[in-house]
Amino acid sequence: MPNAVSFEHVTDGCFADSIGAGGLTRAEFEPLLAETGPALAALRASELPLLKLPARRDDLPAIEAVAARMRGLDEVVILGTGGSSLGGQTLYALADASKKPRLHFHDNVDPHTFDVLLKTLNPARTGVIAISKSGTTAETLAQLFVLLKWAGGGQRFVAVTEPKDSTLTRLAKAHGMALLDHDPGVGGRYSALSVTGVLPAQIAGLDVVALREGAAEVLADPAAAAAGAALAVALWRHKGATQTVLMPYCDRLATFGLWFRQLWAESLGKNGAGTTPIRAVGTVDQHSQLQLYLAGPRDKMYSLMLFDCANEGPVIDASLAKEVGYLAGKRMGALMDAEGRATVATLIRNHRPTRVFRLNRLDESAMGALMMHFMIETILTAHLLGVDAFDQPAVEEGKVLTREYLGA
Amino acid sequence: MPNAVSFEHVTDGCFADSIGAGGLTRAEFEPLLAETGPALAALRASELPLLKLPARRDDLPAIEAVAARMRGLDEVVILGTGGSSLGGQTLYALADASKKPRLHFHDNVDPHTFDVLLKTLNPARTGVIAISKSGTTAETLAQLFVLLKWAGGGQRFVAVTEPKDSTLTRLAKAHGMALLDHDPGVGGRYSALSVTGVLPAQIAGLDVVALREGAAEVLADPAAAAAGAALAVALWRHKGATQTVLMPYCDRLATFGLWFRQLWAESLGKNGAGTTPIRAVGTVDQHSQLQLYLAGPRDKMYSLMLFDCANEGPVIDASLAKEVGYLAGKRMGALMDAEGRATVATLIRNHRPTRVFRLNRLDESAMGALMMHFMIETILTAHLLGVDAFDQPAVEEGKVLTREYLGA
Repeated sequence: MPNAVSFEHVTDGCFADSIGAGGLTRAEFEPLLAETGPALAALRASELPLLKLPARRDDLPAIEAVAARMRGLDEVVILGTGGSSLGGQTLYALADASKKPRLHFHDNVDPHTFDVLLKTLNPARTGVIAISKSGTTAETLAQLFVLLKWAGGGQRFVAVTEPKDSTLTRLAKAHGMALLDHDPGVGGRYSALSVTGVLPAQIAGLDVVALREGAAEVLADPAAAAAGAALAVALWRHKGATQTVLMPYCDRLATFGLWFRQLWAESLGKNGAGTTPIRAVGTVDQHSQLQLYLAGPRDKMYSLMLFDCANEGPVIDASLAKEVGYLAGKRMGALMDAEGRATVATLIRNHRPTRVFRLNRLDESAMGALMMHFMIETILTAHLLGVDAFDQPAVEEGKVLTREYLGA
Repeated sequence: MPNAVSFEHVTDGCFADSIGAGGLTRAEFEPLLAETGPALAALRASELPLLKLPARRDDLPAIEAVAARMRGLDEVVILGTGGSSLGGQTLYALADASKKPRLHFHDNVDPHTFDVLLKTLNPARTGVIAISKSGTTAETLAQLFVLLKWAGGGQRFVAVTEPKDSTLTRLAKAHGMALLDHDPGVGGRYSALSVTGVLPAQIAGLDVVALREGAAEVLADPAAAAAGAALAVALWRHKGATQTVLMPYCDRLATFGLWFRQLWAESLGKNGAGTTPIRAVGTVDQHSQLQLYLAGPRDKMYSLMLFDCANEGPVIDASLAKEVGYLAGKRMGALMDAEGRATVATLIRNHRPTRVFRLNRLDESAMGALMMHFMIETILTAHLLGVDAFDQPAVEEGKVLTREYLGA
């Protein structure tokens, strides 16, 4: 079992008693928080497959059987886009990327990128995983057609898709690809704890049981997620926070920001609703976005993710650094840590609504907990905004046009 | 000389006669465009060093002397953050990344990342470039202290900094590092065409003269940049576009979006002004952000960058793909191309203000032109908003706090 709590959710910096006029009063926040109660109860009572995932183990042997074969290769290319890629990418950031097989996530159809890919990899030592829930995603099929031709067959290929007749299942059967089921009840952007994330994680040697245990921890106590949803909606409604910035101080959480960005945008962006998710990374974006965050319009809420890393990383040699006293003899993590805390303090002094996720570690269970936190927070935010968290109707029109243009 | 025009700037999709109520009337746009005229004239008459860069060649021999030494190594690590990193990263995306030396841009002080870096690279075959305009950037100095210790001296090290006494120049002299001047008159986020971008580009074998020639082309005819500035401000003022999305359909322009994001945010985000720059990538973000863009709030303007790539990339085998008729026998670039055009059409049908950069090629001169376009557009936007495009006063407070926390 993971520790009971892998992160602390600190919300003081969103309230007027901490930050003055930029913050919420309790009267603005409490009614929204109260609204999440029945929504959460309904969610728990529902048969939503997402909520069953943390306790599932029955799907792991089939995934492990495929993963074990892939672990004997040098490289594994993962084809798929959106929810078929970002969960895996996010988890792979926890792995040792120098270890074979190396995983390569390809979520675009850039012709130049694929020219380079085909020249670089050795088909005899490369596995390919094609992930498409519907089995009909144009980009993923185009990628797969190209790689099947390049490899001369599907013997080191896996398809992950719903168990039904589709272009992808027919292709898989015709070319001898392994097949793994994508749960029809788990939408792409909510699928990281299922096969789409677990298969890459398992290939990379991560502990996927701990991942699910971390998620279970949040399911057992989703109070922070409920508070986060109420904060997002209250800050939007009462303080004009039309944008929400997620800024981890940790390179390994940079992809997490991209995963969150899809989750939030596709779940909430409908009927004219939805705040814009913004992915930032500390300390990098102190030198890019912080000027705007501190002195630009008051239209954002900030979620910083701080990892306790003051005693990590290489030591800054005291004699080399002697004229920079505040660095001399410190570890590199001390600078990262101090900068994260300084950014929080500066945002708060500038009356910008800011909450902090304090991570006491970064491992599979902490990642599972963070993922489940943000999924529940997003679902509850959708409930408060009155939109359906699980559909994405607007993107269909472009798909139809693409086919028209290609046919013409 | 590059072709006279490396891109076309198509703005119809921002106007009411194309997109209805979401778009501008000419009466909303023309007065702002007129205001850019005198600003542009004043800019041209100014002694702004940025505007001299495209014609400069005198700085190249010193840069090439350093670059030639670096080209004999296996790896080159570039230390620096913000404007000391993003320009180089953006240009390096044009290079062949499989060719030695491979460039590694490190713009963060994540202790875990540096632990991995030190284990992975061989100090005897690795060059290090430390870029800090002021010579006092805490992150860059911390990185440099660690790498100097690791390498056992500065013989394969280069410092790029203003020619004045500073921690970095003193370190460089004490440890035998090569020194290259950072022009004191060119701010970090405007420095990509100077040594900060040109040195990495030159090491990677790119044509830096073509880069500057492309920039000169835009300086000679900055009409599109003026129109872009007027559009951004008119859409903000009259249509509530508080966010500006830059979405290239091209992996090699993904970093360009990060470079733009700093340029725009730090130049405009002050005195409560500034719209939020958002970096997206096509087709990837069709599966992440497009739902929000099409059906969320009408608070964004969109700039798509489409590259004519329909005849590029691997062929999608017609017999493999026979049941997906619209892909069979096409090249992968045809899908990328069709999706870009479909997204533009769909945004416009949904009344979202959208302009298009149509690139007829992507090479050094096109990149130089795009960079100069966005720099001029940003400077003119700052003028229209009444803010100083060249300072970033708000970030100082956090730096002071960081030192306090580290001292404590």
